[in-house]
Amino acid sequence: MKFSCNQQLLNKALSTVSKAITSRTTIPILKDIYLEAKEDKVLLRASDLNLSIETEIICDVESTGSVAIPSKLFIEIVRKLPNQHITLENLNGQVSLKTLTSEFNLTSHNPDDFPSFNTVESLDKRLLLDREVLKNMIRRTNFSASVDESRPNLTGILFEIEKNSLNMVSSDGFRISVSREEMQNKIEENLVINAKILSEIFKILSESTSDDDVEIVIGDKDMLVKIDNTKVFLRVMDVKYIAYKEILPKDYSTIIKVDTKDLLSAIERASLMAKEGKNNLIKCSVGEGFLTITSRSEEGSVKEEIFIDKNGESLDIGFNSKYVIDALKVIDDDEILIEFKSNLSPCAIKPMEGSEFQYLILPVRIV
Amino acid sequence: MKFSCNQQLLNKALSTVSKAITSRTTIPILKDIYLEAKEDKVLLRASDLNLSIETEIICDVESTGSVAIPSKLFIEIVRKLPNQHITLENLNGQVSLKTLTSEFNLTSHNPDDFPSFNTVESLDKRLLLDREVLKNMIRRTNFSASVDESRPNLTGILFEIEKNSLNMVSSDGFRISVSREEMQNKIEENLVINAKILSEIFKILSESTSDDDVEIVIGDKDMLVKIDNTKVFLRVMDVKYIAYKEILPKDYSTIIKVDTKDLLSAIERASLMAKEGKNNLIKCSVGEGFLTITSRSEEGSVKEEIFIDKNGESLDIGFNSKYVIDALKVIDDDEILIEFKSNLSPCAIKPMEGSEFQYLILPVRIV
Repeated sequence: MKFSCNQQLLNKALSTVSKAITSRTTIPILKDIYLEAKEDKVLLRASDLNLSIETEIICDVESTGSVAIPSKLFIEIVRKLPNQHITLENLNGQVSLKTLTSEFNLTSHNPDDFPSFNTVESLDKRLLLDREVLKNMIRRTNFSASVDESRPNLTGILFEIEKNSLNMVSSDGFRISVSREEMQNKIEENLVINAKILSEIFKILSESTSDDDVEIVIGDKDMLVKIDNTKVFLRVMDVKYIAYKEILPKDYSTIIKVDTKDLLSAIERASLMAKEGKNNLIKCSVGEGFLTITSRSEEGSVKEEIFIDKNGESLDIGFNSKYVIDALKVIDDDEILIEFKSNLSPCAIKPMEGSEFQYLILPVRIV
Repeated sequence: MKFSCNQQLLNKALSTVSKAITSRTTIPILKDIYLEAKEDKVLLRASDLNLSIETEIICDVESTGSVAIPSKLFIEIVRKLPNQHITLENLNGQVSLKTLTSEFNLTSHNPDDFPSFNTVESLDKRLLLDREVLKNMIRRTNFSASVDESRPNLTGILFEIEKNSLNMVSSDGFRISVSREEMQNKIEENLVINAKILSEIFKILSESTSDDDVEIVIGDKDMLVKIDNTKVFLRVMDVKYIAYKEILPKDYSTIIKVDTKDLLSAIERASLMAKEGKNNLIKCSVGEGFLTITSRSEEGSVKEEIFIDKNGESLDIGFNSKYVIDALKVIDDDEILIEFKSNLSPCAIKPMEGSEFQYLILPVRIV
């Protein structure tokens, strides 16, 4: 195998596929990147078995073939090389990388040991998604997935394809985040996808400069996400997600309209005091025209006031400030609605119109 | 004590004085910031006994007085407040911070417990320094001071005031960095200053937007550095520095001229391989017209070639790549000279002209 290519192209491709590599793997070959030179292209691939990423770059291929190269050093070297042509050649268990003034020789491994890329079976289940929509939906849900492996289903994100919408849902047991995009779908599916994998997909989308749609192909136990010339292949989680729709509140006794940034700043300041105490506890007093946020610890106390429009009864309710901050940070709308039922029921943060998102947050009992 | 001031001004002043606070202190009051309101100004002060920083800001003072406030929370709160007027008032062991919509109450401490600012005795020993010159001299020496507390003198930087120059020198036993600025001085002094303190002074200089000279006042055991309206008061280390001038090589057998950036890039790439091996070892072969840098580890090998102008004999010499990279990174000159005597003697990196800097690096024996 011998080919030459541009340093920047190779660097970008390595950065993309390396997102599938976990340093914690116990299978040595999975620390490698698989390269395959064919005709005028080179395919790069990395995998941790649950997630495989492959991409192709245009190269000047002198002889075809494949090789597996230890990823860490390979990536560091290519990143540090100048933006020139790099010639890569595989010779007797060694890969040589040459530019005009540099020559690296790296140990390589048998490419046949690298796991082959799974193929999606039912190729008829397809979905086209605007990439900004997909990015936003991941951003709006990913933060509240659980990291507690004892409830594996909550470490995933529900990817719910309905006739009139695509919904993504996450929860860690204390809050539920729902992101909804209205769209007409020919298929209906319920899949649970590992939140870490979705955050890698988010990074790939963020690094891309194209604005082509993302194609999603759904198999029985797996899913293929095509972003430009990159294929992200992931294993769907074999778990049952919570029946979240049954938990979403149907009615409320109090509804307020509030400025998102004002609320975020006030809670962030109040949480400075809350952090030092227990539970990140802040107390919200919904009154006529004002929301008062208070918190206290051994070091002192804080009181924040912001204007609101209120409909319904006044109430005092406690929250873990982190949960409210997390939700407000991913909302781009200037104003939001917050619905309360009682100080023991979850509150719901919603947009002024439509149902693009909904954040449900369990209160903390205040004495 | 009661005053009001602009949030940005207070925030900047807190950021400046807080550089004197170490979280490791065992004296509780040193975790506080001391505030003193007088006439139309408020003085802020922080100290770790070896380093004290004080600065003043213009305020609207309603009543004078002083207070000590726990720094961590105070700084976080002021940073998060909007850019409005903040009113600060001390009442019965509590400090209140108010803006239009926020009100914080913080525990405060007795300001009399705060150590008083030492005064420099011999006020006639003064030095005026261009702030860019001082910044550069710190940047060019600070990185190679020792962090090994068993050789306390090397954890300091020599601040050597001579008739015709100011020299700053650092060493960790494996290398010596000398930065020299030609200037006429009326005094001659040899002081050793803790490298960590100098890096805090570097930060204060970097954050300032003024271009006034820095005034240095030298006392018997202490030094005062005046930067704008900030006074940095530091204790001079009670140690004897190494007689570095006796170590600087007087002659050489080989001298090369090389492009600084090319050399840095080549050594950085070669060190990717060296890192994985022992000692960060790279081998430099000085030949006719070329410097060849090689390194090898279990994972592979690297060879880098760069153009040089050479005078004298060819030689092979080994280095810890980190030491060469550290020095090259702080050199702004496009081209440099490197002098060698033998592969067992230190090499000296110098500017093409003058004596603004000199980096002496001990070689590693190669087999």
